[in-house]
Amino acid sequence: MPNFTAFVILLAVILYFWTGFRVGQARGKFKISAPATTGSPDFERVFRVQMNMLEWMPIFLPAIWLAAIYVSDIGAALLGLVWIAGRVLYMRGYSAAAEKRETGFFMQAIAAGLLWLAALVGVLVSMLHP
Amino acid sequence: MPNFTAFVILLAVILYFWTGFRVGQARGKFKISAPATTGSPDFERVFRVQMNMLEWMPIFLPAIWLAAIYVSDIGAALLGLVWIAGRVLYMRGYSAAAEKRETGFFMQAIAAGLLWLAALVGVLVSMLHP
Amino acid sequence: MPNFTAFVILLAVILYFWTGFRVGQARGKFKISAPATTGSPDFERVFRVQMNMLEWMPIFLPAIWLAAIYVSDIGAALLGLVWIAGRVLYMRGYSAAAEKRETGFFMQAIAAGLLWLAALVGVLVSMLHP
Repeated sequence: MPNFTAFVILLAVILYFWTGFRVGQARGKFKISAPATTGSPDFERVFRVQMNMLEWMPIFLPAIWLAAIYVSDIGAALLGLVWIAGRVLYMRGYSAAAEKRETGFFMQAIAAGLLWLAALVGVLVSMLHP
Repeated sequence: MPNFTAFVILLAVILYFWTGFRVGQARGKFKISAPATTGSPDFERVFRVQMNMLEWMPIFLPAIWLAAIYVSDIGAALLGLVWIAGRVLYMRGYSAAAEKRETGFFMQAIAAGLLWLAALVGVLVSMLHP
Repeated sequence: MPNFTAFVILLAVILYFWTGFRVGQARGKFKISAPATTGSPDFERVFRVQMNMLEWMPIFLPAIWLAAIYVSDIGAALLGLVWIAGRVLYMRGYSAAAEKRETGFFMQAIAAGLLWLAALVGVLVSMLHP
């Protein structure tokens, strides 16, 4: 089993949970009651941090798992840590101002792209040399 | 293969599909045409039921699968059933009024948290005693 | 390992990434700055294409993976290609007009439903004849 990657996935899941927890806090702070998700740009940026991480989970999770299975557990886990670091930067930047989200965004996008590429190469090699 | 957990995952997926189906029905009932997702609090609560379950799927799915693989298929499946029951309560409560969503929410949050914790312990034990 | 299905999952992930990339482009074209996600129906339809694919990923990914493991790698991969074709039709239709999204929607819904059903039958057979 790809133990290191499983551990990194659980770290990513808890960070993602945290982005949702912050939305609950921001609801109180900026007085945005459920079910509304708009009404204050400060609230909306915190909400979009969670939503953007949600949007990337169906890219990150299949890519890291297939990269771990087909190529390298430790390699996938290390790229997963870079992805998590990019998500933390994105969270901190975007919570402050919309234009400060870019560094973290590109960092996590590159890490996810490399995981996807590694998985693709691994799968193709397995298909050609079963 | 973790058969019981696979079965419970398929149950969770069909419940999640159902929360989306209800959004389509609510579009007709409350006259909210696509692509709009706002305009009526009654519609927005039904929409938020689906969105909230979507938000929790990237927590639930990796946690239950890793808990099943690393710890116990039947244990993970039983916690998965508690999670599903919490999601049903949340759906019924939130559809009626925003403040009635809390019991189901905490029930599913605790079940998902226990699955995540079980997976973490299982992965750490595997890393330390390969 | 279910190589063909892993390959199709990676195709689905890149198409999904593309639906998000188009949202970034549409932000510029229709002058909708982050964190806003409303303000122009033309932007909102492009945004909803991404969101709808995001909504279906937690149905598609578990269903295709379990169908591949429990029933047939090639069968799951072929249904996965139909799903992807339905998503492409949906993207092209919805980007033009809200009512043009229906053909692609039903195509992908039927493919995802068959994957779910195949997975369910496969899991039940495994539970009854271990």
